[in-house]
Amino acid sequence: MTTGRVRIALDAMGGDHGPDVVIPGAALTLERHPDVTFLMYGDEAMCRPILASHPALLAATELRGCDVFIAMDEKPGHALRRGRGKSSMWLAIQAVKDGEADVAVSAGNTGALMAMATFCLRTMSGINRPAIACIWPTLRGESIVLDVGATIGADAAHLVNMALMGAAMASILFDIERPTVGLLNVGTEDVKGLDEIKLASTLLRETAITSLDYAGFVEGSDIGHGTVDVVVTEGFTGNVALKTAEGTAKQIAAYLKQAIGSSLLSKIGYLFARSAFRALKDRMDPRKVNGGVFLGLDGVVIKSHGGTDATGYAAAIDVGYDMVKYDLLDRIRSALDLELSGKNLSGPALEAGSAEEGNEP
Amino acid sequence: MTTGRVRIALDAMGGDHGPDVVIPGAALTLERHPDVTFLMYGDEAMCRPILASHPALLAATELRGCDVFIAMDEKPGHALRRGRGKSSMWLAIQAVKDGEADVAVSAGNTGALMAMATFCLRTMSGINRPAIACIWPTLRGESIVLDVGATIGADAAHLVNMALMGAAMASILFDIERPTVGLLNVGTEDVKGLDEIKLASTLLRETAITSLDYAGFVEGSDIGHGTVDVVVTEGFTGNVALKTAEGTAKQIAAYLKQAIGSSLLSKIGYLFARSAFRALKDRMDPRKVNGGVFLGLDGVVIKSHGGTDATGYAAAIDVGYDMVKYDLLDRIRSALDLELSGKNLSGPALEAGSAEEGNEP
Repeated sequence: MTTGRVRIALDAMGGDHGPDVVIPGAALTLERHPDVTFLMYGDEAMCRPILASHPALLAATELRGCDVFIAMDEKPGHALRRGRGKSSMWLAIQAVKDGEADVAVSAGNTGALMAMATFCLRTMSGINRPAIACIWPTLRGESIVLDVGATIGADAAHLVNMALMGAAMASILFDIERPTVGLLNVGTEDVKGLDEIKLASTLLRETAITSLDYAGFVEGSDIGHGTVDVVVTEGFTGNVALKTAEGTAKQIAAYLKQAIGSSLLSKIGYLFARSAFRALKDRMDPRKVNGGVFLGLDGVVIKSHGGTDATGYAAAIDVGYDMVKYDLLDRIRSALDLELSGKNLSGPALEAGSAEEGNEP
Repeated sequence: MTTGRVRIALDAMGGDHGPDVVIPGAALTLERHPDVTFLMYGDEAMCRPILASHPALLAATELRGCDVFIAMDEKPGHALRRGRGKSSMWLAIQAVKDGEADVAVSAGNTGALMAMATFCLRTMSGINRPAIACIWPTLRGESIVLDVGATIGADAAHLVNMALMGAAMASILFDIERPTVGLLNVGTEDVKGLDEIKLASTLLRETAITSLDYAGFVEGSDIGHGTVDVVVTEGFTGNVALKTAEGTAKQIAAYLKQAIGSSLLSKIGYLFARSAFRALKDRMDPRKVNGGVFLGLDGVVIKSHGGTDATGYAAAIDVGYDMVKYDLLDRIRSALDLELSGKNLSGPALEAGSAEEGNEP
């Protein structure tokens, strides 16, 4: 555990509501974690008055004005060219790079944030590609799912690295020593699925990994069930799964609303059951599990939902706080060093293994 | 529309409950569609007494005894070797091949059914690979999603073919002339996603297709929203999306049950709102949309959920009935002929297009 203050860099202009959400969100985090300080990048004229109404936050914050802001619909390449070195998003990441902050948080454009974070911080030694890990509410609590959209496609080495990184994140968030990890597949039998997934499964099973407990293949239905602590998949499938689950939750919430509004009796029933519905709404509240973690970079960057409110934004900052406080990067580095030292995951031995797997019926 | 009787071949032994569900299910379909006859394959000693208790069905059914049955967990290759020519599953498909039946329905092992159907019926001219299309309940009614697991991966030609086949199925089920079709992607901007998806999008946009209305890219959240009538994706992603949605629905149903059971007041509220909850349960009822359609084969084969009851099984037979009555295969053939005649989807022109697309940032 890191002692001392946790220094958090904020992109005050990111997200649908910019400083109107970022600043009250930061104030909420400060109440829960008095050992944080903030470096805030944004439009001074906009931020100053909002900050002034949060005196405790004002005292813990250094506001640095800038005047380039990344739009939510800006293409990543364009954002990088236009915003490099001067946008609020870039400057927050740069603060991590320069050692002025321990973590950067933004509710801005995901693609632009990933492009800038990768360009500025670079990937960790031993990792070729970053991943975005999200916290997924399940019947048993919460799980981590990655990659939900950083990159498309993954070879066996990337899948194994994601398993190690996701387990490091889970060990912090859920306070467990050896999180269970599953590889997302279209069936749980060993013969199913793509060659790279089968190869990653063999590697995870045959390597004695102390930092995680490999549980084999899982299916889409296992995510919400909470079968494992960490679900690993490549970014296209992970992104579709996440958005499909969000869509289904919205759909059922709409059905429920229609059902309750359908008659006077059901409205009366609702009044009696109000606290139960509040509890239900609370469990389905996407704000409570806000905070996507960029994994595989030489620095910690947190993505908040763009449309969230102060409660949700504070949840995202809190995830960043935990990642710093409990040494995410060190945990990942030692997992990579310990478990896979001497193993060349993309070398000829692996290719031979792949060919062998491919011969299965 | 086909006139005359619709002849349906049933694998009476498929599914978790075999003839105990298949026979009452067939009886339900017969009540709704008196113009059907059944060819039923299964264990005579098991089927005969159940059939005897449904006199109307008995009169409309020819029972053909057999004694090889495919297990739910049998591997497809094994099932094909063991069951070819003699299992209840194979014989139902063979009846379609031989022109004795118009459609085969089974609640058995999906992989085995697909392997046997592909081996026995072969793919249609112009189609290289089959797909499984499922009916997905949405906020606007129902949509069709394919492929939910027939094959892994899809090139641009297969994606375009799936769009045409899915639209043909939608035109029957939803009784619309030009169903809207979307390609599943990780973003709705044209620049995102995999090369094959971008190429398929270009082909669908630039070809004046009269049998469908191409709506561009859709995301996972659009499925449950019902943004388009037909969602096209490759089988791995489609299978994960389907199972993730099922898992999310179960998860929320469990939350709801816990919330209602949490206090006396909420239980009283439930009593008042009972009819509303029944309506909700009804809308979330997976039996109502049972019936996966195998597309791309030279014959119609319907897959029912293995664990369903008679109501669900009847829904699957009904889908098969509609597909025959309204000439699914002819619609697909004419869509393939009309729209894409003279276009070589895997020829050099396409590859040049692909390279060009690949150069985009």
